[in-house]
Amino acid sequence: MIASQLTPRSRLLLGPGPCDAHPRVLTAMTTPLLGHLDPQFLEIMTETQSMMREVFGTNNRLTFPISATGMAGMETCLVNLLEPDDTVVVCAKGFFGARMIDVAERTGARVIALHQPWGQAFDLNHLREVLKRERPKAFGIVQAETSTGVHQSLEGLGKLCQELGTLLIVDCVTSLGCTPLKVDDLKIDAAFSCSQKGLGCPPGLSPLTFSDRAVAALKARKSKVRSWYLDLTMIESYWGGDRSYHHTAPISMIYALREGLRIVLEEGLEARWARHFRNHVALKAGLEALGLNYIAAPGCQLPQLNAVHIPAGIEDIPNRKRMLIDFDIEIGGGLGDFKGKAWRIGLMGYNSKPSSVFQVLAALETVLRGAGLKVAAGSGVAAAEVAYGN
Amino acid sequence: MIASQLTPRSRLLLGPGPCDAHPRVLTAMTTPLLGHLDPQFLEIMTETQSMMREVFGTNNRLTFPISATGMAGMETCLVNLLEPDDTVVVCAKGFFGARMIDVAERTGARVIALHQPWGQAFDLNHLREVLKRERPKAFGIVQAETSTGVHQSLEGLGKLCQELGTLLIVDCVTSLGCTPLKVDDLKIDAAFSCSQKGLGCPPGLSPLTFSDRAVAALKARKSKVRSWYLDLTMIESYWGGDRSYHHTAPISMIYALREGLRIVLEEGLEARWARHFRNHVALKAGLEALGLNYIAAPGCQLPQLNAVHIPAGIEDIPNRKRMLIDFDIEIGGGLGDFKGKAWRIGLMGYNSKPSSVFQVLAALETVLRGAGLKVAAGSGVAAAEVAYGN
Repeated sequence: MIASQLTPRSRLLLGPGPCDAHPRVLTAMTTPLLGHLDPQFLEIMTETQSMMREVFGTNNRLTFPISATGMAGMETCLVNLLEPDDTVVVCAKGFFGARMIDVAERTGARVIALHQPWGQAFDLNHLREVLKRERPKAFGIVQAETSTGVHQSLEGLGKLCQELGTLLIVDCVTSLGCTPLKVDDLKIDAAFSCSQKGLGCPPGLSPLTFSDRAVAALKARKSKVRSWYLDLTMIESYWGGDRSYHHTAPISMIYALREGLRIVLEEGLEARWARHFRNHVALKAGLEALGLNYIAAPGCQLPQLNAVHIPAGIEDIPNRKRMLIDFDIEIGGGLGDFKGKAWRIGLMGYNSKPSSVFQVLAALETVLRGAGLKVAAGSGVAAAEVAYGN
Repeated sequence: MIASQLTPRSRLLLGPGPCDAHPRVLTAMTTPLLGHLDPQFLEIMTETQSMMREVFGTNNRLTFPISATGMAGMETCLVNLLEPDDTVVVCAKGFFGARMIDVAERTGARVIALHQPWGQAFDLNHLREVLKRERPKAFGIVQAETSTGVHQSLEGLGKLCQELGTLLIVDCVTSLGCTPLKVDDLKIDAAFSCSQKGLGCPPGLSPLTFSDRAVAALKARKSKVRSWYLDLTMIESYWGGDRSYHHTAPISMIYALREGLRIVLEEGLEARWARHFRNHVALKAGLEALGLNYIAAPGCQLPQLNAVHIPAGIEDIPNRKRMLIDFDIEIGGGLGDFKGKAWRIGLMGYNSKPSSVFQVLAALETVLRGAGLKVAAGSGVAAAEVAYGN
């Protein structure tokens, strides 16, 4: 059976990602393909790497996109930096930290898992104590926990890790392009992200960067990397300089990423972070006016991922479904511990804009009222307008 | 530094892949993104899987694209079906068979490598003997060896593997959509391919199918799959039925694949295979008229990948470069043992058409004459025209 022509209804994607890709990014993907060894494509790779370094805030030579989605970036960091018998400390304060434990365990390394209740950040003093006590080869932590909307401060961790000879691995999937991230200033050794959130591209790539210390650890390995596809000792030959073939690069996705990075740099990182914060403040004012309370404490709320408690007596799925079917707006449900208990509203990349804020607040008001909640008419949008200073 | 707008010169991609994507496929990628759990996208997944089954010639339930390029498909098969202490026999008659050995070794399994000189196919009687002697858990072989242009017959291997309790793993990267492949008839247990060759899509996905026997082996594993990203016991929950989140699907690439599969089925598999063969016959007539001889013996030459010896006294890189720079035509060089010794001319998917044949022959004639080879004017194109019956 041949499927019919592809004509889905458009949605406004305000979940945890993907968000809508910037129209220029979609257009860039229609550029005719080039061979992965064409001099024109090699130049495109160089440009993409250069812009990626700027967006990551790093001079790391080994900076390029992994040819798979964000979770492959996580695996790339762990599988390349860990060997059987190594020790790694992994911090879990939500769904993605917990995943990092699973991914780390498959490398054969000894994994020490630290847990923090979902919705909270780790206390830096506690982390410093653990690091000093365990002196692990690597330390893994999530900067922006997508499942809870919690921002994790990394202050001082990089310096301490350097002193202890520990490699600092940071999950930047939801932070890159949305909130401040400066890989070199933070002395991060391995960072990975995704294409479909702060960079405003479709999902499919995982931007990655390794410090010289991480590269040295990679080169000092005694055993082969367990994954062939994610083996940086080989991929590095393609992206690292001599451009020798490892696997066929996902050409159209690289076109998309290149365009996404251009748009980020045209706006400027500081301006982009400020835009994400401004729209978050307005959304937050509106959500609270509607009676929706944040899960994360003030001070560690992610501007790009607004996770709120579902109000008592309000069902999860039917109301999100109404948002989707009646309003063509996608918001996210809860994962893991928060299943059925949280809604996650993303304002990421291209979608972090006032019209997203107003649309989702107006729709939520209607849906919540329809579900029986008492909400003053127009209260969410009005509160956002005040926050914007209109 | 912000890179300039993306405007590369278009090429005619007649190398080993990627080939040019069908224009309809590029257009499909501009479809606005959907969330990976949107009911509309779940329907798109179902349609894509259904068409993929038809193109693979299988009823296998577990049939879907891996969210990475073809080599990840190879790793997915091996890493999911093998555990430490298992035995696998891997056949290498070129670059990609040799890679399969490396990928298999990283699973911790015992790998028995069979080697055949590059440019030759394996003798089926020999393979049957080895299988009966070793009775391995799995047996891996490449159907269309992209590095040498050799077609490997699989006749009778599937039946024998079933009798011996061996899982038959076949690399179909260059065969799917180009040359006859019927997974169920051949009793293949695990097959993987790519998006950028016979399916006429950009690189980035690896269509994969597992038989019920392979799924049973997967479920009987004693240890966790070594790769988290490629762990089918988990991905299966997303693509297999309950659609629960594993990683964010590469939405735009799935749009592309869906469109590519529609185009394949609109043409019909038999007609598509016949088209690839017809254009190959014409190209071959032309290449031989130009004095270029095939590496593979008659009877095992791949229609979609025409590998020829570089004539004595003719340099590899400067002449391929001239093809690229003066004519905007990409042809492939040799890999591994064939580096500097072979040219590989692909006629795959959308690019398997008479104009590709005529363009590459006319350009090659000019380039070869420029390099000092005696070639009768128009001889290549004329021979192709005769072969087409013009």
